Amino acid sequence: MKYGEVSEIIEKINPLDKAAYAAPTARMDDLTKPPGSLGKLEDIAIKVAAIQGAERPRIGKKRIYTLAGDHGVTEEGVSAFPSEVTPQMVMNFLAGGAAINVLTRHVGSEIQVADLGVAYDFGDVPGLLPLKVGMGTANFTKGPAMSRDACLEAVKRGAKLAMDAAEDGVSLLGVGEMGIGNTTSAAAFLALYGDLDPDEAVGRGTGVDDLGLKRKADAIRRGIKVNEPDLNDPIDVLAKLGGYEIAGMTGVYLGAAAAGVPIVADGFISTSSALIASKLAPALADYLFLSHLSLEQGHRKMIELTGLTPLLELDMRLGEGTGAALAFSIIEGATKILSEMATFSEAGVTNKE
Amino acid sequence: MKYGEVSEIIEKINPLDKAAYAAPTARMDDLTKPPGSLGKLEDIAIKVAAIQGAERPRIGKKRIYTLAGDHGVTEEGVSAFPSEVTPQMVMNFLAGGAAINVLTRHVGSEIQVADLGVAYDFGDVPGLLPLKVGMGTANFTKGPAMSRDACLEAVKRGAKLAMDAAEDGVSLLGVGEMGIGNTTSAAAFLALYGDLDPDEAVGRGTGVDDLGLKRKADAIRRGIKVNEPDLNDPIDVLAKLGGYEIAGMTGVYLGAAAAGVPIVADGFISTSSALIASKLAPALADYLFLSHLSLEQGHRKMIELTGLTPLLELDMRLGEGTGAALAFSIIEGATKILSEMATFSEAGVTNKE
Repeated sequence: MKYGEVSEIIEKINPLDKAAYAAPTARMDDLTKPPGSLGKLEDIAIKVAAIQGAERPRIGKKRIYTLAGDHGVTEEGVSAFPSEVTPQMVMNFLAGGAAINVLTRHVGSEIQVADLGVAYDFGDVPGLLPLKVGMGTANFTKGPAMSRDACLEAVKRGAKLAMDAAEDGVSLLGVGEMGIGNTTSAAAFLALYGDLDPDEAVGRGTGVDDLGLKRKADAIRRGIKVNEPDLNDPIDVLAKLGGYEIAGMTGVYLGAAAAGVPIVADGFISTSSALIASKLAPALADYLFLSHLSLEQGHRKMIELTGLTPLLELDMRLGEGTGAALAFSIIEGATKILSEMATFSEAGVTNKE
Repeated sequence: MKYGEVSEIIEKINPLDKAAYAAPTARMDDLTKPPGSLGKLEDIAIKVAAIQGAERPRIGKKRIYTLAGDHGVTEEGVSAFPSEVTPQMVMNFLAGGAAINVLTRHVGSEIQVADLGVAYDFGDVPGLLPLKVGMGTANFTKGPAMSRDACLEAVKRGAKLAMDAAEDGVSLLGVGEMGIGNTTSAAAFLALYGDLDPDEAVGRGTGVDDLGLKRKADAIRRGIKVNEPDLNDPIDVLAKLGGYEIAGMTGVYLGAAAAGVPIVADGFISTSSALIASKLAPALADYLFLSHLSLEQGHRKMIELTGLTPLLELDMRLGEGTGAALAFSIIEGATKILSEMATFSEAGVTNKE
């Protein structure tokens, strides 16, 4: 019980039984289309069906959690936007004016916004889930971003969100983030787990210039040196170089897999949380979809580390959950193919000679 | 007036004024996100806005036309399925059991099915648009698939469909097909316009084996030799090696562009019609979206000939309009970004330093 209650969640994550794929696969091959002709849609539908233990998968309620947190490492000049933008964007989410609001409305998904660690006192704002673990992380170039306990607390709160969603009947879950400075944390994970020089792991995030990019790589280099994270202990890496919202997202992945709900990653930072979560629980892969390949330098390599393939490639690099929202439409469409199409015999269509 | 009434339609297709892009581009750059961070979604939204002459684009009614026709070249053993599947699948479309039915329902689009040249007498079937020009094409290895007049008639009927859609208030149009044997026609166009050996242009379609693939390339080789199509006359190419539904789709593209409605191509065959249409009217590109890169060998090269980039890459190869339907969700989401997101000043968010 190395991680206390988080270990209990991890223990609930079981790899799917191979037998769960048989019935949906058989049905898919009997639908009125040449076998395999719907490509990735077929794989998606069968995966959701296997998770649901059903021949015909059903997507009902959909939800995206957008988790927010601030980052002490912004002191090092790693971002094109100031930290005050984190709470401002949280308010924008709550007012419905951000990209994630538009796209969740578009695909018929709920959106819930949680404060895991924004460096701002929101007071009692309607609509915001108050899960603050700290007022932003510490600057990881000078020591751990979070204490181990605070990190585990954020993971636990994220896992609770996923469990709540399952209890609310959510059958497709996505997770995104808002946190000025957080691509620096994600790039640090990539450098560590991908064995890359920080210069290769960093990207422009919200749009830093060349000097900012250099500062970012340098901050990661110092952060790794100062903190000496233990690669065999994902929570150590997460606590020392991560963020509250990143730890929270890690928890959402774990909680979703534990509850048997398909979970959709968003972009670079969201995928970095999925990477940490899959180090904690490799069976997460059976429940995980990668929504898109972001334009953020490093995302392709991070995706390779997960062993999965992304559904979309639209040169997006915004975060918030926007890629996950768009992928919801693809995933839900895929499940309807399996559940609603006619078979050859039902439709009276001659099968392949 | 080389093409009679078809020439009149072509003359109505105007390149968009560069000025039409200014207002939507300015608004896009003022929305609460780092500039460019929504990647292709931004380009899509601005393109639709420019077509509509609006700062904020609106997608209302959406429609996909699925056009059906049969192909005499199936006599040469070029397909894995027999021709009788064409009318059977038309009946499946009308009953709502095919993939295109599922996906159009999913994205909130209408679907209309038209018989341009199926080799079957449907009689008076409710829901089927009776636009039959002929009872399937002739075997193009022995002479022209269609007469020039029949081909122009099919193009005209397709264009009329697009005009009808515009009149019905459709603001996003897609076009797909059903026609056993029709990848052979599309591959013939690719061989001609891409200057490829037929062996490089053909793919497996609905699933032919290696021998079938050889027969397909050989049929194209003979078809080109027997018919001597004139590359400088796209209607000559279309008539000699195409199909009724392929000519009809060519008309849909032309009609949509003439009416100023954004038009979405589907897979290999649908794109081959777009290629012919763009040879007739290069300004079509301003109105055209390519929905997806199909797994059909040759589609990537055909897409290169159009100069556009596809939105999705899901290894699909079904046709019917299925890729266009999925792309509708992306395109509509993109337009909502531009129309519904808050600007920095509206949301009180600090812009980039």
